Amino acid sequence: MNVLLVYAHPEPRSLNGGMRDFIVERLRSAGHEVKVSDLYAMRWKATLDAEDFPQRNAAERFNPSADSKLAFLEGTQTSDVAAEQDKLRWADLVIFQFPMWWYSMPAILKGWFERVYAYGFAYGVGEHSDRRWGERFGEGVFKGKRAMLIVTTGGWEEHYSERGINGPIDDVLFPIQHGMLFYPGFDVLPPFLVYRTSKMNEQRYGETLAALGTRLDRAMLDQPIAYRRQNHGDYEIPSLTLKPELAEQRTGFALHLQAEFAA
Amino acid sequence: MNVLLVYAHPEPRSLNGGMRDFIVERLRSAGHEVKVSDLYAMRWKATLDAEDFPQRNAAERFNPSADSKLAFLEGTQTSDVAAEQDKLRWADLVIFQFPMWWYSMPAILKGWFERVYAYGFAYGVGEHSDRRWGERFGEGVFKGKRAMLIVTTGGWEEHYSERGINGPIDDVLFPIQHGMLFYPGFDVLPPFLVYRTSKMNEQRYGETLAALGTRLDRAMLDQPIAYRRQNHGDYEIPSLTLKPELAEQRTGFALHLQAEFAA
Repeated sequence: MNVLLVYAHPEPRSLNGGMRDFIVERLRSAGHEVKVSDLYAMRWKATLDAEDFPQRNAAERFNPSADSKLAFLEGTQTSDVAAEQDKLRWADLVIFQFPMWWYSMPAILKGWFERVYAYGFAYGVGEHSDRRWGERFGEGVFKGKRAMLIVTTGGWEEHYSERGINGPIDDVLFPIQHGMLFYPGFDVLPPFLVYRTSKMNEQRYGETLAALGTRLDRAMLDQPIAYRRQNHGDYEIPSLTLKPELAEQRTGFALHLQAEFAA
Repeated sequence: MNVLLVYAHPEPRSLNGGMRDFIVERLRSAGHEVKVSDLYAMRWKATLDAEDFPQRNAAERFNPSADSKLAFLEGTQTSDVAAEQDKLRWADLVIFQFPMWWYSMPAILKGWFERVYAYGFAYGVGEHSDRRWGERFGEGVFKGKRAMLIVTTGGWEEHYSERGINGPIDDVLFPIQHGMLFYPGFDVLPPFLVYRTSKMNEQRYGETLAALGTRLDRAMLDQPIAYRRQNHGDYEIPSLTLKPELAEQRTGFALHLQAEFAA
């Protein structure tokens, strides 16, 4: 299979750098093609702005969505953005690897999504009717592809547990996994998490890589997170609220898991 | 009072640009001092990297936390970062205004937090013992100050309602409001939200500004969101899990609201 690793850590000689090298080696050894977008090494432009659209009419006011739509349609996007879109089209599996900073991804990776996820590519696609509300949440350009997060954090696993102060890790990652990956059609694999990174030692590192290797070996076999699809009867349209008879016992993000998979 | 507006939109002639001008005018008319950090206009550096620490030993591996700690202690941070920290020290109220992009803030603002929230300033402070786990979640450098989000989104209010497909807006904003504002000690005011921005018209715009003006007038009077404080008996230490007898009926982020304020 073809694997794209989108990697966002500034220091190659870090825990994340070691994990990245392991991932590439493991996948290539298994016969897969691997491309790496090493955002720091590429000096990726993090900020979405008018300069991303060199052919726009500079006298008119800049509209991020409208200018993105036009540039995508007319093939006038910047080459860095178009290259990332090509890698996404090529990939069967996309891995996003990053340290958790302030309960989310580093800005450089957030800016990758903002710039690469053009209007007409990753959003703003499909018909809006009384049966469908665009191709999103289970449909879209990445339908049939898989995505997976690999995330390191200094925090303890308990702090991200069901009653931990940071909130459950599934909820902390929901805006990413559901809102940025499932939205444009990816099947989202359960994340691979490394907690308490300051307490890493040789033994734990070995165990971590072993567990990571197993996850990579099974990446095309494992069951994706069972998010509910938008256009398949679970949601009212256009309010996009979950139908009243579904998940009556639950609240919050956990509503959006199919009933049989909810905790 | 002193108000800092941290503003992240690339186009001054936008809905956000109009709201920004209104906010500044309203606050100044009421006799307040206002400073604006207009991140796009400042060409704010979004990416946290080794270049933020010009005096570090370039032969050693870059460690974002450790290098941040040292630069903050020794006064060798870059001047853009130090200037933002000074504005934060000066402010009684900090407003963060931005369009929601992919269920979070724009990368340029995320990078503001990553760079300005130095180790020793916004995190990594306070003792760790069997009674306390650092100064965070209700304590910290911003104790006594207030913060408030002003967020625009193209999505519908229903899509962010209790059973909406995006998840409840309080949950979508939790990693920001709880994790980035309450964490270093801010009292967090309820957010001001503008939904379905593509359907703005003159009447709705007038109503929106009127409602926003009222919120600004009451910013020092309104009740902050009643998040539970970390070091005041609600959480086990060091697991930082909510004590079993509290909020037994709830799950997810909503656990971390004091009982009497939960929906």
